[in-house]
Amino acid sequence: MPGNSFGQIFRVTTFGESHNVAVGVIIDGVPAGLELSESDVQKELNRRRPGVSEIVSPRAELDKVEILSGVFNGKTTGTPITMIVRNIAFEDEPYEIIKDLPRPGHADLTYWLKYGHVDYRGGGRASGRETVARVAAGAIAKKILKKFGIDILGHVIEVAGIGIDPEKVTFDAIRNADKNPIRCADSNVAEKMVQKIKRAKEEGDSVGGIVEVIALNCPAGLGDPVFDKLDADIAKALMSIGAVKGVEIGAGFRLAKMRGSEANDQFAIDPKTGKIITTTNNAGGILGGISNGMPIIARLVVKPTSSIALPQTTINLKTMKEAKIEVKGKHDPSICPRVVPVAEAMLALVLVDHMMRAGYVHLTKFEESSSLK
Amino acid sequence: MPGNSFGQIFRVTTFGESHNVAVGVIIDGVPAGLELSESDVQKELNRRRPGVSEIVSPRAELDKVEILSGVFNGKTTGTPITMIVRNIAFEDEPYEIIKDLPRPGHADLTYWLKYGHVDYRGGGRASGRETVARVAAGAIAKKILKKFGIDILGHVIEVAGIGIDPEKVTFDAIRNADKNPIRCADSNVAEKMVQKIKRAKEEGDSVGGIVEVIALNCPAGLGDPVFDKLDADIAKALMSIGAVKGVEIGAGFRLAKMRGSEANDQFAIDPKTGKIITTTNNAGGILGGISNGMPIIARLVVKPTSSIALPQTTINLKTMKEAKIEVKGKHDPSICPRVVPVAEAMLALVLVDHMMRAGYVHLTKFEESSSLK
Amino acid sequence: MPGNSFGQIFRVTTFGESHNVAVGVIIDGVPAGLELSESDVQKELNRRRPGVSEIVSPRAELDKVEILSGVFNGKTTGTPITMIVRNIAFEDEPYEIIKDLPRPGHADLTYWLKYGHVDYRGGGRASGRETVARVAAGAIAKKILKKFGIDILGHVIEVAGIGIDPEKVTFDAIRNADKNPIRCADSNVAEKMVQKIKRAKEEGDSVGGIVEVIALNCPAGLGDPVFDKLDADIAKALMSIGAVKGVEIGAGFRLAKMRGSEANDQFAIDPKTGKIITTTNNAGGILGGISNGMPIIARLVVKPTSSIALPQTTINLKTMKEAKIEVKGKHDPSICPRVVPVAEAMLALVLVDHMMRAGYVHLTKFEESSSLK
Amino acid sequence: MPGNSFGQIFRVTTFGESHNVAVGVIIDGVPAGLELSESDVQKELNRRRPGVSEIVSPRAELDKVEILSGVFNGKTTGTPITMIVRNIAFEDEPYEIIKDLPRPGHADLTYWLKYGHVDYRGGGRASGRETVARVAAGAIAKKILKKFGIDILGHVIEVAGIGIDPEKVTFDAIRNADKNPIRCADSNVAEKMVQKIKRAKEEGDSVGGIVEVIALNCPAGLGDPVFDKLDADIAKALMSIGAVKGVEIGAGFRLAKMRGSEANDQFAIDPKTGKIITTTNNAGGILGGISNGMPIIARLVVKPTSSIALPQTTINLKTMKEAKIEVKGKHDPSICPRVVPVAEAMLALVLVDHMMRAGYVHLTKFEESSSLK
Repeated sequence: MPGNSFGQIFRVTTFGESHNVAVGVIIDGVPAGLELSESDVQKELNRRRPGVSEIVSPRAELDKVEILSGVFNGKTTGTPITMIVRNIAFEDEPYEIIKDLPRPGHADLTYWLKYGHVDYRGGGRASGRETVARVAAGAIAKKILKKFGIDILGHVIEVAGIGIDPEKVTFDAIRNADKNPIRCADSNVAEKMVQKIKRAKEEGDSVGGIVEVIALNCPAGLGDPVFDKLDADIAKALMSIGAVKGVEIGAGFRLAKMRGSEANDQFAIDPKTGKIITTTNNAGGILGGISNGMPIIARLVVKPTSSIALPQTTINLKTMKEAKIEVKGKHDPSICPRVVPVAEAMLALVLVDHMMRAGYVHLTKFEESSSLK
Repeated sequence: MPGNSFGQIFRVTTFGESHNVAVGVIIDGVPAGLELSESDVQKELNRRRPGVSEIVSPRAELDKVEILSGVFNGKTTGTPITMIVRNIAFEDEPYEIIKDLPRPGHADLTYWLKYGHVDYRGGGRASGRETVARVAAGAIAKKILKKFGIDILGHVIEVAGIGIDPEKVTFDAIRNADKNPIRCADSNVAEKMVQKIKRAKEEGDSVGGIVEVIALNCPAGLGDPVFDKLDADIAKALMSIGAVKGVEIGAGFRLAKMRGSEANDQFAIDPKTGKIITTTNNAGGILGGISNGMPIIARLVVKPTSSIALPQTTINLKTMKEAKIEVKGKHDPSICPRVVPVAEAMLALVLVDHMMRAGYVHLTKFEESSSLK
Repeated sequence: MPGNSFGQIFRVTTFGESHNVAVGVIIDGVPAGLELSESDVQKELNRRRPGVSEIVSPRAELDKVEILSGVFNGKTTGTPITMIVRNIAFEDEPYEIIKDLPRPGHADLTYWLKYGHVDYRGGGRASGRETVARVAAGAIAKKILKKFGIDILGHVIEVAGIGIDPEKVTFDAIRNADKNPIRCADSNVAEKMVQKIKRAKEEGDSVGGIVEVIALNCPAGLGDPVFDKLDADIAKALMSIGAVKGVEIGAGFRLAKMRGSEANDQFAIDPKTGKIITTTNNAGGILGGISNGMPIIARLVVKPTSSIALPQTTINLKTMKEAKIEVKGKHDPSICPRVVPVAEAMLALVLVDHMMRAGYVHLTKFEESSSLK
Repeated sequence: MPGNSFGQIFRVTTFGESHNVAVGVIIDGVPAGLELSESDVQKELNRRRPGVSEIVSPRAELDKVEILSGVFNGKTTGTPITMIVRNIAFEDEPYEIIKDLPRPGHADLTYWLKYGHVDYRGGGRASGRETVARVAAGAIAKKILKKFGIDILGHVIEVAGIGIDPEKVTFDAIRNADKNPIRCADSNVAEKMVQKIKRAKEEGDSVGGIVEVIALNCPAGLGDPVFDKLDADIAKALMSIGAVKGVEIGAGFRLAKMRGSEANDQFAIDPKTGKIITTTNNAGGILGGISNGMPIIARLVVKPTSSIALPQTTINLKTMKEAKIEVKGKHDPSICPRVVPVAEAMLALVLVDHMMRAGYVHLTKFEESSSLK
């Protein structure tokens, strides 16, 4: 309960601080018999790693995963899977200097108020580095979803005021968004976004944006009324990501201006499958908190990176006097592209947990027949 | 775990279907010694009751609460508090006719797909009537918060495209929002909202809107990293309300267009209290998932009421053929004003739970000294 | 979490005090489509009711169950099932007189220390009356188990120093134990037990005993390592019954005096089913915390009823001086026979919860095919 | 929920298999500001390590603990504490040979039935090696309890039929039990126990026994009615230890033969403290599931070590034919002395969790004032 765990049956617990020995994760609830290797996880970690383009942090974090338990002869055993990533090489960042100066926008102040004794180095537990553990867990979740044909997509739909209309991009374009550094499904818009991010960076500033994540081919029936609605759990999952301050499902905040006759997705029969579909998807694939078989669509707003080079006003915790602070270091001017794999991971965690609740996956063995339901 | 419970230490479980015997709630986790009477709860239930104005449903629901356990000689005893509200008088609604016709926008289809056997009368468990139980629980949560000087406010900031700027209304104006039927803090705007709602109603349609809820005087330090961040729990709480499809904290989705230098709330010392405050509140009172002592601000988008008189397209579940449906009955053309007390209740539930996690309230007795911390 | 709930997926929450409005239970986690009527539950409640023989309390408790939610047209709907039993007719018990005199052996003192404000009437929440709720929930659990051919048996194997050898009675004899008032599988021994209980009663005293509960035809594979072992969960379930101070599985405490060569159950093939069995059952059907397909056997020690007519020494909570107390009222001289249905209920709750964890039953619909696994 | 976690607020999750990379534990819920070093933990691990006397396994397990997270500058930070112990040097044990031959008394068969794919080496997850993680967590729990003056004691009261009367040994004698290899509080009896164990070992056999654990100076008021009674949680905690098949509290199974007048502990005033005490302690410090301030006393039966050299009968899982098996390797002829620190750890985990529930310790900072309550 203390806050570092997520999920009820597929239960993920993360640990570790930015500049301590390691960050890592235990996943309790993976059934036995799923093929799993460190490379399955590493490829997702590589997607969130910094230093891969000029618009993200140039910090060199190798982020090499090590599996400590739960896997034997290349397959899961049904016991907890523990993965760690050792922290390395951060001597260049002079965190000591600012340890009494809480950075605006960061958790420094609130951790200090709550805990008194804090590992302040690089944000400690509140560092974005904690998402390494989420992405590692998400890699396993995605692998399970894949067995059922479920795909998780993610892309950046707005940065620094430049956006695309997410309803106008194809799922294939989204799948290719990883090819540009900002992870936008439209490569022309991506180029403009990058320019705008660079300008902000040059000015010592940062920018916000919006990320969209999608789950394709989810079965109907996921989500538990009334508090553990699928959209409620997705909202919590996405809002728990450090820089996120808003989440919407389907048409989201646009629904405020709609009428019921426009907002209600009408039912129809899919001529190919004979199943009930909706002709629009304002509900984002979720009706009454339960998936209806349509694509599940969620969007999250990512605030501008809190670490900026421009001078800001803070309070010295020792003297309780106002002070100025300039946050040095290798920071992302926009965290959006690196939030994409994290948001995908969180969506995957929610879905596997609800797949287990609904009986698609059990706390025993992963049977091939599972995928035929 | 199955979905009908909320909160970890202050644990609320709701039950009941719209047209079955009763709806109700158990609250496990209320400390002993808190004065509590049915009238404390009744006054909150009266705020969500239909039939109180011409823009909400004219259904006559008395919603009289009965406390079955956990209270002795006018005080709580530390044992579970169970409250029920009997359901009465609904013979006029011909639900049988449409039981094979899932209503667009409603949970009818997904419940049918998930459960097979469903109490379809009036939406059954998925009915807005379930929120009676939430409001009853919220009444007790508010009472506990009050002991610590914490106030929960709620108001409608947008309906049918007509809105106010929530940053421009005072907390006092919000406290008075209950005085008009749409619960808007600006009575002039309220009048326009009502006109627009009436028009939609006459046309057999419904409208969406946005509700804002606020907690004043919350202590700093509430919220548990990393998954049980205060904003993550608030997001789940609010998104679990039936018609809600989006939640934002503080500046929310506006952060997408901001730069870090604008978005980061700068620190200052409050000259009156000597405590650290922020000069803006884009973070909505929550930094790194932990409250910072500033007002906690959340907004939720409420979709247009799904029940509309206009003809819609559905599928007959028996024949699997397309069919038309017109949803008769006494429905709210806008559910926004009635969502206000529900959203307030959910915010209160989250806060009390986190007050207990942080040690302000214990699973023993409620001591007067508790409020002095 | 606050203590009034049991089970993870099949989640039971009980409420109510002995002399308040009602006692009751919510069960969240029953799948949809299970036939259920109040009479299914009533017949189990009748088994624990007092006043049915001269060796149990002559109090007249009708214990009529009412189902408030979760059932529609005679079947469960997958939503929470709430059942209540109204409390009636207790004006003859002068609890006021002793409200400052904690009764030895009872929870009066510890509730007072923990909660300060206590509903002391008849033990309040700590009354054995709370087990009405457990038995009601157990009735549903048993019904689910029955679908899989799993039988729950219970009987008294020792009272007041008179016992039977549980390894020497047949399952059929145990099934017939309900026919005598002490619920002993050997009717001759039962008669001696009754005589001994009567003598204790005449002397104003009470006696202890041992109850055994058994689950037949459980599938192998129930129980989750390492903390939620099946025997660990059974131990908690049974120890949570008011008067129980010890639990053992299989050969239990006799294992202290055995050698490994005697204690280890040897494996063999059942010629009828071709499945692996053990030739003895010292493990009580559970190896490494997981069921092995053999009968699950647990025993619990029931302390002598704490309420006795003989004078005892207590402390007056107001004066903090020693005082004498004689506990009047209609009390069971031995609670053992009435513990039998309660212990059966608790075993059933544990098993259904683990059936759900292992994927035999889902949080969706109860399919007929479920029973064929 | 999947079974590898224990505790609600003080939440422990263990991981790792006997012959995989490492065993370890995350503790989520330790408040910030508690001094903690690896040596605090190491000294408890050394107490359970094998190879320290001739009556326990001669395996050389160094069991060196490494803290990966949650500690900064020698103090806890309120974030999850992760500790691992690498597994080393086990090439001499030919587990491959017996991988299709489930060992009687072990979890081999049930894991195979439940999971299909199992890490069978040395028992894998079901190995006693998992208790390394419990003891490491327990070391931190004990440290917290010590701040409140609470002491955890443990000793062996019976082995191979030779026992002591636990009511006749002093707490000081128990504190010295660690000085002899069997951890018996009476060194003369200890010598006899050792002789009997040696004889069993020479005969290729093993012996069972009984361990007692005690908590001194616990405050009254710990334990939550009705399912999370303190004794219910202790029963689960102790029964979850691999070889344990029975648990009793206070007078335990002896209560079956008592009368109420003997069993009920009478109340009195402690002349030194002015607090209410009981003149006997048949309740083992727990009344109605809540601690009453008297010593908390629990006993657990430890079955004879399942691994014995004598030939046993099993089933070859490939051929489904009967086969003989002799379990080679360096096994403990009696696991009792090594269960002592594990049982102490489990008792400590339960108590800290309930201290947090009752508000003695919070999910924030560990304040010195905490110890003054």
